[in-house]
Amino acid sequence: MQKINFSQTKLAYLAGLLDGDGSIYARIKKRNDCKYNLHISPCVVFFQSLKARNNFVLIFKEFNFGYHRQRKDGMLEYIINKQEDIYNFLTILKPFIILKNQQLKIMLEIIEIKRLPNTKKNFDYNLSLAKKLKKLNYSNT
Amino acid sequence: MQKINFSQTKLAYLAGLLDGDGSIYARIKKRNDCKYNLHISPCVVFFQSLKARNNFVLIFKEFNFGYHRQRKDGMLEYIINKQEDIYNFLTILKPFIILKNQQLKIMLEIIEIKRLPNTKKNFDYNLSLAKKLKKLNYSNT
Repeated sequence: MQKINFSQTKLAYLAGLLDGDGSIYARIKKRNDCKYNLHISPCVVFFQSLKARNNFVLIFKEFNFGYHRQRKDGMLEYIINKQEDIYNFLTILKPFIILKNQQLKIMLEIIEIKRLPNTKKNFDYNLSLAKKLKKLNYSNT
Repeated sequence: MQKINFSQTKLAYLAGLLDGDGSIYARIKKRNDCKYNLHISPCVVFFQSLKARNNFVLIFKEFNFGYHRQRKDGMLEYIINKQEDIYNFLTILKPFIILKNQQLKIMLEIIEIKRLPNTKKNFDYNLSLAKKLKKLNYSNT
Protein backbone atom coordinates (compact mmCIF):
# COMPACT_ATOMS: atom_id res chain seq x y z
CA MET A 1 0.00 0.00 0.00
CA GLN A 2 1.25 3.47 -0.81
CA LYS A 3 2.46 5.81 1.90
CA ILE A 4 -0.78 7.59 2.57
CA ASN A 5 -0.51 11.34 2.51
CA PHE A 6 -4.12 12.27 1.85
CA SER A 7 -5.21 15.65 3.17
CA GLN A 8 -7.33 15.84 6.33
CA THR A 9 -10.35 16.95 4.32
CA LYS A 10 -9.91 14.05 1.86
CA LEU A 11 -9.85 11.61 4.79
CA ALA A 12 -12.89 13.29 6.39
CA TYR A 13 -14.76 13.07 3.06
CA LEU A 14 -13.91 9.37 2.68
CA ALA A 15 -15.05 8.74 6.27
CA GLY A 16 -18.37 10.42 5.51
CA LEU A 17 -18.74 8.41 2.31
CA LEU A 18 -17.97 5.14 4.12
CA ASP A 19 -20.33 6.05 6.98
CA GLY A 20 -23.04 6.93 4.47
CA ASP A 21 -22.97 4.14 1.97
CA GLY A 22 -19.96 1.93 2.56
CA SER A 23 -19.47 -1.36 4.31
CA ILE A 24 -16.86 -2.80 6.67
CA TYR A 25 -17.40 -6.53 6.83
CA ALA A 26 -15.72 -9.90 7.23
CA ARG A 27 -16.96 -12.81 5.17
CA ILE A 28 -16.90 -16.23 6.84
CA LYS A 29 -16.26 -18.77 4.08
CA LYS A 30 -16.18 -22.56 4.26
CA ARG A 31 -12.80 -23.70 2.95
CA ASN A 32 -11.46 -27.23 3.24
CA ASP A 33 -7.90 -26.09 2.68
CA CYS A 34 -8.01 -23.99 5.84
CA LYS A 35 -6.90 -25.26 9.22
CA TYR A 36 -10.33 -24.91 10.84
CA ASN A 37 -12.31 -25.33 7.59
CA LEU A 38 -13.38 -21.71 7.71
CA HIS A 39 -11.75 -18.58 6.39
CA ILE A 40 -12.37 -15.04 7.60
CA SER A 41 -12.05 -12.50 4.75
CA PRO A 42 -12.02 -8.83 5.75
CA CYS A 43 -13.35 -6.31 3.26
CA VAL A 44 -14.11 -2.61 2.93
CA VAL A 45 -16.44 -1.55 0.11
CA PHE A 46 -17.77 1.75 -1.20
CA PHE A 47 -20.93 1.59 -3.33
CA GLN A 48 -22.29 3.91 -5.98
CA SER A 49 -24.82 3.78 -8.77
CA LEU A 50 -23.56 4.04 -12.33
CA LYS A 51 -24.86 7.57 -12.83
CA ALA A 52 -21.94 9.07 -10.91
CA ARG A 53 -19.38 6.72 -12.46
CA ASN A 54 -16.79 9.28 -13.55
CA ASN A 55 -16.70 11.11 -10.25
CA PHE A 56 -16.74 7.85 -8.29
CA VAL A 57 -13.65 6.70 -10.18
CA LEU A 58 -12.06 10.11 -9.57
CA ILE A 59 -12.41 9.76 -5.78
CA PHE A 60 -10.14 6.70 -5.75
CA LYS A 61 -7.75 7.86 -8.44
CA GLU A 62 -4.89 8.50 -6.01
CA PHE A 63 -5.26 5.05 -4.43
CA ASN A 64 -2.91 2.29 -5.48
CA PHE A 65 -4.77 -0.29 -3.42
CA GLY A 66 -8.28 -1.59 -3.94
CA TYR A 67 -10.11 -1.98 -7.24
CA HIS A 68 -13.34 -1.09 -9.03
CA ARG A 69 -16.00 -3.66 -9.90
CA GLN A 70 -19.29 -3.27 -11.69
CA ARG A 71 -22.04 -5.54 -10.43
CA LYS A 72 -24.63 -7.15 -12.67
CA ASP A 73 -27.32 -4.91 -11.17
CA GLY A 74 -25.39 -1.87 -12.39
CA MET A 75 -23.94 -0.81 -9.05
CA LEU A 76 -20.31 0.21 -8.92
CA GLU A 77 -18.10 -0.89 -6.06
CA TYR A 78 -14.67 0.13 -4.90
CA ILE A 79 -13.29 -2.83 -2.99
CA ILE A 80 -10.34 -2.98 -0.60
CA ASN A 81 -9.71 -6.60 0.30
CA LYS A 82 -6.05 -6.93 1.24
CA GLN A 83 -5.69 -7.27 4.95
CA GLU A 84 -2.88 -4.78 5.49
CA ASP A 85 -4.40 -2.25 3.09
CA ILE A 86 -7.65 -2.39 5.06
CA TYR A 87 -5.75 -2.00 8.31
CA ASN A 88 -3.76 1.02 7.16
CA PHE A 89 -6.73 2.64 5.47
CA LEU A 90 -9.08 2.26 8.44
CA THR A 91 -6.37 3.44 10.83
CA ILE A 92 -6.03 6.77 9.03
CA LEU A 93 -9.83 7.12 8.69
CA LYS A 94 -10.42 6.32 12.37
CA PRO A 95 -10.37 9.92 13.70
CA PHE A 96 -13.15 10.88 11.26
CA ILE A 97 -15.47 7.86 11.30
CA ILE A 98 -18.63 8.42 13.36
CA LEU A 99 -21.41 6.01 12.37
CA LYS A 100 -19.33 2.91 11.66
CA ASN A 101 -16.97 3.43 14.57
CA GLN A 102 -17.79 0.08 16.18
CA GLN A 103 -17.37 -1.82 12.91
CA LEU A 104 -14.02 -0.11 12.35
CA LYS A 105 -12.69 -1.06 15.79
CA ILE A 106 -13.79 -4.69 15.40
CA MET A 107 -12.18 -4.91 11.97
CA LEU A 108 -8.87 -3.58 13.25
CA GLU A 109 -8.99 -6.18 16.04
CA ILE A 110 -9.82 -8.99 13.58
CA ILE A 111 -6.77 -8.09 11.49
CA GLU A 112 -4.52 -7.79 14.54
CA ILE A 113 -5.56 -11.31 15.57
CA LYS A 114 -5.10 -12.66 12.06
CA ARG A 115 -1.45 -11.60 12.33
CA LEU A 116 -0.99 -13.83 15.40
CA PRO A 117 -0.30 -17.59 15.24
CA ASN A 118 -3.39 -19.39 13.94
CA THR A 119 -4.24 -21.26 17.14
CA LYS A 120 -7.73 -22.60 17.80
CA LYS A 121 -8.16 -20.02 20.56
CA ASN A 122 -7.20 -17.10 18.31
CA PHE A 123 -9.32 -18.44 15.46
CA ASP A 124 -12.40 -18.94 17.62
CA TYR A 125 -12.08 -15.48 19.07
CA ASN A 126 -11.75 -14.01 15.60
CA LEU A 127 -14.79 -15.95 14.45
CA SER A 128 -16.78 -14.44 17.31
CA LEU A 129 -15.60 -10.97 16.23
CA ALA A 130 -16.57 -11.63 12.61
CA LYS A 131 -20.04 -12.71 13.76
CA LYS A 132 -20.33 -9.63 15.95
CA LEU A 133 -19.43 -7.49 12.93
CA LYS A 134 -22.04 -9.25 10.80
CA LYS A 135 -24.68 -8.65 13.45
CA LEU A 136 -23.78 -4.96 13.63
CA ASN A 137 -24.08 -4.67 9.85
CA TYR A 138 -27.39 -6.44 9.48
CA SER A 139 -29.21 -5.72 12.71
CA ASN A 140 -31.59 -2.80 12.63
CA THR A 141 -31.57 -2.20 16.36
CA MET B 1 -29.96 29.65 10.10
CA GLN B 2 -26.96 29.97 12.37
CA LYS B 3 -23.77 31.55 11.18
CA ILE B 4 -21.97 28.46 10.03
CA ASN B 5 -18.50 28.05 11.38
CA PHE B 6 -18.03 24.32 10.97
CA SER B 7 -14.46 23.14 10.51
CA GLN B 8 -13.23 22.17 7.05
CA THR B 9 -13.05 18.51 8.08
CA LYS B 10 -16.62 18.62 9.44
CA LEU B 11 -17.82 20.03 6.11
CA ALA B 12 -15.82 17.44 4.16
CA TYR B 13 -17.31 14.66 6.33
CA LEU B 14 -20.85 15.96 5.77
CA ALA B 15 -20.19 16.16 2.01
CA GLY B 16 -19.04 12.52 2.02
CA LEU B 17 -22.10 11.50 4.03
CA LEU B 18 -24.44 13.34 1.67
CA ASP B 19 -22.67 11.92 -1.40
CA GLY B 20 -22.87 8.45 0.10
CA ASP B 21 -26.37 8.17 1.44
CA GLY B 22 -28.09 11.52 1.28
CA SER B 23 -30.48 13.10 -1.15
CA ILE B 24 -30.88 16.53 -2.74
CA TYR B 25 -34.32 16.71 -4.30
CA ALA B 26 -37.24 18.98 -5.12
CA ARG B 27 -40.74 17.64 -4.72
CA ILE B 28 -43.31 18.82 -7.25
CA LYS B 29 -46.66 18.97 -5.45
CA LYS B 30 -50.11 19.72 -6.79
CA ARG B 31 -51.51 22.63 -4.80
CA ASN B 32 -54.63 24.54 -5.72
CA ASP B 33 -53.63 27.51 -3.56
CA CYS B 34 -50.53 28.08 -5.68
CA LYS B 35 -50.43 30.44 -8.64
CA TYR B 36 -49.66 27.71 -11.18
CA ASN B 37 -51.31 24.86 -9.18
CA LEU B 38 -47.94 23.29 -8.52
CA HIS B 39 -45.44 23.87 -5.75
CA ILE B 40 -41.73 23.09 -5.89
CA SER B 41 -40.39 22.04 -2.46
CA PRO B 42 -36.60 21.78 -2.14
CA CYS B 43 -35.23 19.29 0.37
CA VAL B 44 -31.92 17.86 1.60
CA VAL B 45 -32.07 14.60 3.55
CA PHE B 46 -29.52 12.39 5.30
CA PHE B 47 -30.58 8.78 5.96
CA GLN B 48 -29.43 6.24 8.52
CA SER B 49 -30.67 3.02 10.03
CA LEU B 50 -31.67 3.00 13.67
CA LYS B 51 -28.62 1.05 14.79
CA ALA B 52 -26.41 4.12 14.64
CA ARG B 53 -29.04 6.40 16.16
CA ASN B 54 -26.94 8.05 18.87
CA ASN B 55 -24.04 8.88 16.62
CA PHE B 56 -26.37 10.01 13.85
CA VAL B 57 -27.98 12.49 16.25
CA LEU B 58 -24.52 13.59 17.38
CA ILE B 59 -23.50 14.55 13.83
CA PHE B 60 -26.23 17.18 13.63
CA LYS B 61 -26.04 18.36 17.23
CA GLU B 62 -24.42 21.69 16.33
CA PHE B 63 -27.09 22.43 13.71
CA ASN B 64 -29.94 24.75 14.60
CA PHE B 65 -31.66 24.13 11.28
CA GLY B 66 -33.23 20.90 10.03
CA TYR B 67 -34.86 18.20 12.13
CA HIS B 68 -34.81 14.46 12.81
CA ARG B 69 -37.63 12.13 11.79
CA GLN B 70 -38.06 8.42 12.29
CA ARG B 71 -39.84 6.65 9.45
CA LYS B 72 -42.27 3.79 9.96
CA ASP B 73 -39.75 1.39 8.39
CA GLY B 74 -37.27 2.28 11.14
CA MET B 75 -35.02 4.53 9.09
CA LEU B 76 -33.86 7.78 10.62
CA GLU B 77 -33.75 10.95 8.57
CA TYR B 78 -32.23 14.35 9.13
CA ILE B 79 -34.24 16.75 7.00
CA ILE B 80 -33.38 20.29 5.92
CA ASN B 81 -36.40 21.78 4.19
CA LYS B 82 -36.22 25.52 4.60
CA GLN B 83 -35.17 27.13 1.36
CA GLU B 84 -32.54 29.51 2.72
CA ASP B 85 -31.11 26.89 5.09
CA ILE B 86 -30.67 24.52 2.14
CA TYR B 87 -29.05 27.27 0.11
CA ASN B 88 -26.58 28.24 2.82
CA PHE B 89 -25.81 24.66 3.74
CA LEU B 90 -25.18 23.51 0.16
CA THR B 91 -23.11 26.61 -0.55
CA ILE B 92 -20.62 25.76 2.21
CA LEU B 93 -20.60 22.05 1.25
CA LYS B 94 -20.03 22.85 -2.43
CA PRO B 95 -16.21 22.70 -2.41
CA PHE B 96 -16.31 19.18 -0.98
CA ILE B 97 -19.20 17.52 -2.83
CA ILE B 98 -18.06 15.16 -5.59
CA LEU B 99 -20.80 12.66 -6.51
CA LYS B 100 -23.86 14.90 -6.14
CA ASN B 101 -22.22 17.94 -7.66
CA GLN B 102 -24.78 18.25 -10.45
CA GLN B 103 -27.71 17.92 -8.07
CA LEU B 104 -26.19 20.57 -5.80
CA LYS B 105 -25.77 23.08 -8.63
CA ILE B 106 -29.32 22.54 -9.88
CA MET B 107 -30.71 22.96 -6.36
CA LEU B 108 -28.87 26.25 -5.85
CA GLU B 109 -30.28 27.46 -9.17
CA ILE B 110 -33.83 26.38 -8.23
CA ILE B 111 -33.61 28.39 -5.01
CA GLU B 112 -32.14 31.42 -6.76
CA ILE B 113 -35.07 31.38 -9.18
CA LYS B 114 -37.60 30.90 -6.37
CA ARG B 115 -36.35 34.21 -4.95
CA LEU B 116 -37.30 36.00 -8.17
CA PRO B 117 -40.83 37.24 -9.00
CA ASN B 118 -43.10 34.24 -9.57
CA THR B 119 -43.71 34.81 -13.27
CA LYS B 120 -44.88 32.00 -15.56
CA LYS B 121 -41.49 32.05 -17.30
CA ASN B 122 -39.56 31.73 -14.04
CA PHE B 123 -41.92 29.05 -12.75
CA ASP B 124 -41.73 26.97 -15.92
CA TYR B 125 -37.97 27.16 -15.95
CA ASN B 126 -37.83 26.09 -12.32
CA LEU B 127 -40.20 23.21 -13.05
CA SER B 128 -37.85 22.04 -15.78
CA LEU B 129 -34.95 22.20 -13.29
CA ALA B 130 -36.93 20.22 -10.68
CA LYS B 131 -37.66 17.55 -13.32
CA LYS B 132 -34.01 17.47 -14.32
CA LEU B 133 -33.08 16.96 -10.67
CA LYS B 134 -35.60 14.14 -10.33
CA LYS B 135 -34.18 12.44 -13.40
CA LEU B 136 -30.66 12.71 -12.03
CA ASN B 137 -31.77 11.15 -8.75
CA TYR B 138 -33.70 8.25 -10.21
CA SER B 139 -31.95 7.49 -13.44
CA ASN B 140 -29.33 4.78 -13.32
CA THR B 141 -27.43 5.94 -16.35
